[in-house]
Amino acid sequence: MNNFLFENKTKVYFGKGGVKEYLGCLLEHYGDTVMLAYGGGSIKHNGIYDEIVGILNAAGKRIVEFPGIMSNPTYAKVQEGAKLARENHVDLILAVGGGSVSDCCKVVSAQAKVDEDLWELENTKHTRPTEFIPLGTIVTVFGTGSEMNNGAVITHEEKKIKGALWGAQADFAFLDPTYTLSVPMKQVISGAFDTLSHAMETYFGKPDENNLSDDINEAVMRSVIRNIRVLLTDKDNYEARSELAWASAMAENGILKIGKVTDFQCHMIEHQLGAYTNCNHGAGLAVIHPVLYRHLLPANTARFARFAQNVWGIDPAGKSELKLAQAGVEALAAFIKEIGMPTTFAELGIPADTDLKAVADSTVLTGGCCKKLSHDEIYEILKECK
Amino acid sequence: MNNFLFENKTKVYFGKGGVKEYLGCLLEHYGDTVMLAYGGGSIKHNGIYDEIVGILNAAGKRIVEFPGIMSNPTYAKVQEGAKLARENHVDLILAVGGGSVSDCCKVVSAQAKVDEDLWELENTKHTRPTEFIPLGTIVTVFGTGSEMNNGAVITHEEKKIKGALWGAQADFAFLDPTYTLSVPMKQVISGAFDTLSHAMETYFGKPDENNLSDDINEAVMRSVIRNIRVLLTDKDNYEARSELAWASAMAENGILKIGKVTDFQCHMIEHQLGAYTNCNHGAGLAVIHPVLYRHLLPANTARFARFAQNVWGIDPAGKSELKLAQAGVEALAAFIKEIGMPTTFAELGIPADTDLKAVADSTVLTGGCCKKLSHDEIYEILKECK
Repeated sequence: MNNFLFENKTKVYFGKGGVKEYLGCLLEHYGDTVMLAYGGGSIKHNGIYDEIVGILNAAGKRIVEFPGIMSNPTYAKVQEGAKLARENHVDLILAVGGGSVSDCCKVVSAQAKVDEDLWELENTKHTRPTEFIPLGTIVTVFGTGSEMNNGAVITHEEKKIKGALWGAQADFAFLDPTYTLSVPMKQVISGAFDTLSHAMETYFGKPDENNLSDDINEAVMRSVIRNIRVLLTDKDNYEARSELAWASAMAENGILKIGKVTDFQCHMIEHQLGAYTNCNHGAGLAVIHPVLYRHLLPANTARFARFAQNVWGIDPAGKSELKLAQAGVEALAAFIKEIGMPTTFAELGIPADTDLKAVADSTVLTGGCCKKLSHDEIYEILKECK
Repeated sequence: MNNFLFENKTKVYFGKGGVKEYLGCLLEHYGDTVMLAYGGGSIKHNGIYDEIVGILNAAGKRIVEFPGIMSNPTYAKVQEGAKLARENHVDLILAVGGGSVSDCCKVVSAQAKVDEDLWELENTKHTRPTEFIPLGTIVTVFGTGSEMNNGAVITHEEKKIKGALWGAQADFAFLDPTYTLSVPMKQVISGAFDTLSHAMETYFGKPDENNLSDDINEAVMRSVIRNIRVLLTDKDNYEARSELAWASAMAENGILKIGKVTDFQCHMIEHQLGAYTNCNHGAGLAVIHPVLYRHLLPANTARFARFAQNVWGIDPAGKSELKLAQAGVEALAAFIKEIGMPTTFAELGIPADTDLKAVADSTVLTGGCCKKLSHDEIYEILKECK
């Protein structure tokens, strides 16, 4: 196992009823002004907004609303939130939603504390923020695993880059699987596929040797696959939703990455696709993954063969390593079809005239996987996805 | 998945060379006086003591030595450490050793802050300490997983009870697998078996349903079994030692327990055996586990069958659930023999006239497993272990 540093400070309150039971007490540790951040307003229809506002009011907090955080949150939205937080001397940001709301709020929490432009700091000075407004999250859609780390994916519309920024890690995160019951099934599945993608991206990182993180990762992947299948026939199944909720956090809380180097190739390609088309993140990943893996497979057949056997349960008997490896990638492709996710850009609704060359050329890979793809190869992959 | 709260604040510095690279910087965050706690002094022969003292001196720290922490650390030793820490106004306790040193220091860190007797507070008032001297650990023997939690096992010699107390959780923990290279192989294996035991004790807790923690647990158990076997033929193998080191922490950092209730029956029985005989912890567990599981098996045959298949790789074809379950327990028993651990109390060196009835009667179980054993059943198990 490679050397590593690991810490994760977020306190997780997991399960139904957690917000009602614990949020009030938690609020006592923070100042009077709470920024309540959320997305398109669905929380106003399913009772979550009323529940939280009731608790904030009961705790005597002044509420500063920061609504309208979009999917693929923009850097402009971050600036809007930071201005609001500064002007109102916000003491705590409460991010209520999925990964987009959480990611946006992480960067708001940092941007509100400094005058310099965080995008420039990260991308030109390679400096990361160190001061933050405290952050808490209440997750209503699972998949990004944003709730237990300090990473954020933000779209800079002018630059046409969907890139990583770093902000506050939440002090606390409420993960109540019942909050997902009113989320459209398509979005639930898309989120769960994002979890599977995070696990796969880490699993196909380096090194390949005996590594406990990979063993644990296989367990997470199998659990995600199994529980997505449960939801296909029993959509309100609490057990399956709760397993997927915790798997979402586990895939991105650092545990799977211990001792590994990863470059999240599929995510990096999809992010640029998102920057150019604003497509759904999980759906974009679903289209790209099998095509990407068919390209990567020759560079690490043994690892793909292990993936086939240990994640997809494919019997290796009578198969060459190559055939076994290929069967694993095709099992992934079949699974994507089975769960109703798109398998081509056309199905995903990507306009046929999208400049895929520009998407490929703007994708930045760091080489943490078995093969560092060239921009030409990325372009080939994107064309095959059409 | 059951509701749960989870947090783990310990920052882990894992891998060879970590102390040299990071300890000096870390010390800047603490006051001038550091209590350097260790065991029988083996660290003075393998260079670890000199390395740490050099770093402490370079950082200008005043060192208060607290040596001689024994295996199965006593409550009297805790009091000695607490007095020393108080008298010297210690700012940081640095626990260098295995679980015994870490456990002792956790309780020292709490007892130094209060006048009341912590044993009484825990066992009569059921109150846990809230104030601590900061603690850091440098692990030299793996297995207890003490480095990433706040639990401690302390032997109260007068009361003849080896019981749990709660103290500081380490701010930081250095896990350098090369530090184990000078530890006798018997102790390395005993520690690794303790890790396996922690995982099993959790796995056989409640509930049995679909639970990501169980899937992850199986991965940890398989890794421990695989890597102990590597050490049997290649004792200095760094990869195996590092995998076992991280598995040790993973088994007790709370991740495997998420959503589960456990009562650690084997540990509770072994603790009382230890209180009466001061036997080696891992070795005591090795003797008791198979006998205990033969008794528990009828109460949860399905779970033992899953254990057989998913942990020991036993082919279920042609076997009834009962036969499969039994094969799993016998695989565990055979493994214990294979790795040279004792299989009877006689082999372990427990005196034949040990009052096993008193051991049984003083064992406290909480019923977190498939069956809450009576004192008579525990006595039967202990007699079968002879």
